[in-house]
Amino acid sequence: MIIPLVGIGVDVHAFEDALELPEGQGTPRNLWLAGLEWPGERALSGHSDGDAVAHAACDALFSAAGVGDLGTHFGTSRPEFKGASGVRLLQEAARIVRDAGFEIGNVAVQFVGNRPKFGPRREEANRALSDAAGATVTVTATTSDGLGYEGNAQGITAYATALVYRTPAS
Amino acid sequence: MIIPLVGIGVDVHAFEDALELPEGQGTPRNLWLAGLEWPGERALSGHSDGDAVAHAACDALFSAAGVGDLGTHFGTSRPEFKGASGVRLLQEAARIVRDAGFEIGNVAVQFVGNRPKFGPRREEANRALSDAAGATVTVTATTSDGLGYEGNAQGITAYATALVYRTPAS
Amino acid sequence: MIIPLVGIGVDVHAFEDALELPEGQGTPRNLWLAGLEWPGERALSGHSDGDAVAHAACDALFSAAGVGDLGTHFGTSRPEFKGASGVRLLQEAARIVRDAGFEIGNVAVQFVGNRPKFGPRREEANRALSDAAGATVTVTATTSDGLGYEGNAQGITAYATALVYRTPAS
Ligand SMILES: [Zn+2]
Ligand SMILES: [Zn+2]
Ligand SMILES: [Zn+2]
Repeated sequence: MIIPLVGIGVDVHAFEDALELPEGQGTPRNLWLAGLEWPGERALSGHSDGDAVAHAACDALFSAAGVGDLGTHFGTSRPEFKGASGVRLLQEAARIVRDAGFEIGNVAVQFVGNRPKFGPRREEANRALSDAAGATVTVTATTSDGLGYEGNAQGITAYATALVYRTPAS
Repeated sequence: MIIPLVGIGVDVHAFEDALELPEGQGTPRNLWLAGLEWPGERALSGHSDGDAVAHAACDALFSAAGVGDLGTHFGTSRPEFKGASGVRLLQEAARIVRDAGFEIGNVAVQFVGNRPKFGPRREEANRALSDAAGATVTVTATTSDGLGYEGNAQGITAYATALVYRTPAS
Repeated sequence: MIIPLVGIGVDVHAFEDALELPEGQGTPRNLWLAGLEWPGERALSGHSDGDAVAHAACDALFSAAGVGDLGTHFGTSRPEFKGASGVRLLQEAARIVRDAGFEIGNVAVQFVGNRPKFGPRREEANRALSDAAGATVTVTATTSDGLGYEGNAQGITAYATALVYRTPAS
């Protein structure tokens, strides 16, 4: 019988302009979120491109499969992932999970933040992330009703869950 | 074979009296949470009745089924849902998910906030929400140990997860 | 057919030295988290040992099985659990869920906080919690990018999800 395993991932990023960076650091760039570039939106900070939605999806997959987490696979000790896109990390996470003997059922991510307005680009985001994972990834979005760091527009949080299946030994 | 899909939902509402509303707005009313009225408890703000528990349950269902989110279905562009109860929204969300070809497995919601005290009314809440969804909905509750906006009693957060099943084509 | 049920748990604890306790309370002790003692790390506050990771795991199991929550089973009305370890509570939670007629599939916990550094002890933590639950428990860890009470090092949050299965009546 095929038994599913569930996982959870939470990822937080500050907006880059909310940080006090040394002069010359934090070059202006666009936001990347949910595998998409968002022209004119404030960028998120991070070792990578700051794509909290893609990162939460990765961590939910790692969590379900029990194969470490983002820090294990893409941390500062892995310079080849410095600045890597959310799509690239999610492709790599899906590969790691499959190599460990799992099939991916689906991944679902809820994004909490004031910006960007997600609705008009939801299908595009779902497609970009699903292509990266090779499995259904869905994104939903909400605000925090003005509360907390999401409400103050200092940063955003993404919450993800995933189902994976142990591949039967052949 | 029947394959489950998992979803996640997070919903935050501020207490109405924690907001600075224009004179005359924010008429005093009771709290509605988890499908129940809580006499004497501070009301939550919102386009609807502010029932974060019911809303998180809706978003977890939409997320699992990949059919948009609360904003898509009940947003300010849908005036017929202005002031709608959490129970009504959850009934409607369950209908939307079933119409899209899914059966609902279960929904679980964790509520984080100082108030109301949930324990004595848990069974009543589980029943109200399960009746609305036509499937098992369970609610658990905790505080944030005095931290964050939940600890300051400015608002509450509800976290939900759901399982749905694609209905086999007949 | 065996149908899985999903659950969710969120648990927050403040660091003890971040609270203003009456003189003589809050005796210095080590951190307990994810079933492990962390010498030299700031302790978390709580009726129990403050092990947010173990508590979130318990609540996710209770949530999936629909049998109440931490407050129901281990609250201040149950003095025998005062100061109880996270491992003991998770053992007890697993027993309660099995006695209610469920098998445990797996539990996954994501920890958000600056400290402790989880990576080097992840396998040890997974083992301690899996032994306690009698089922696979995996822990992942991240920071909040300096935001919120986790970023201010006032406290930590643990998010958990779990799958359980109703045991077929024999
Ligand atoms: Zn990240
Ligand atoms: Zn809401
Ligand atoms: Zn706790």
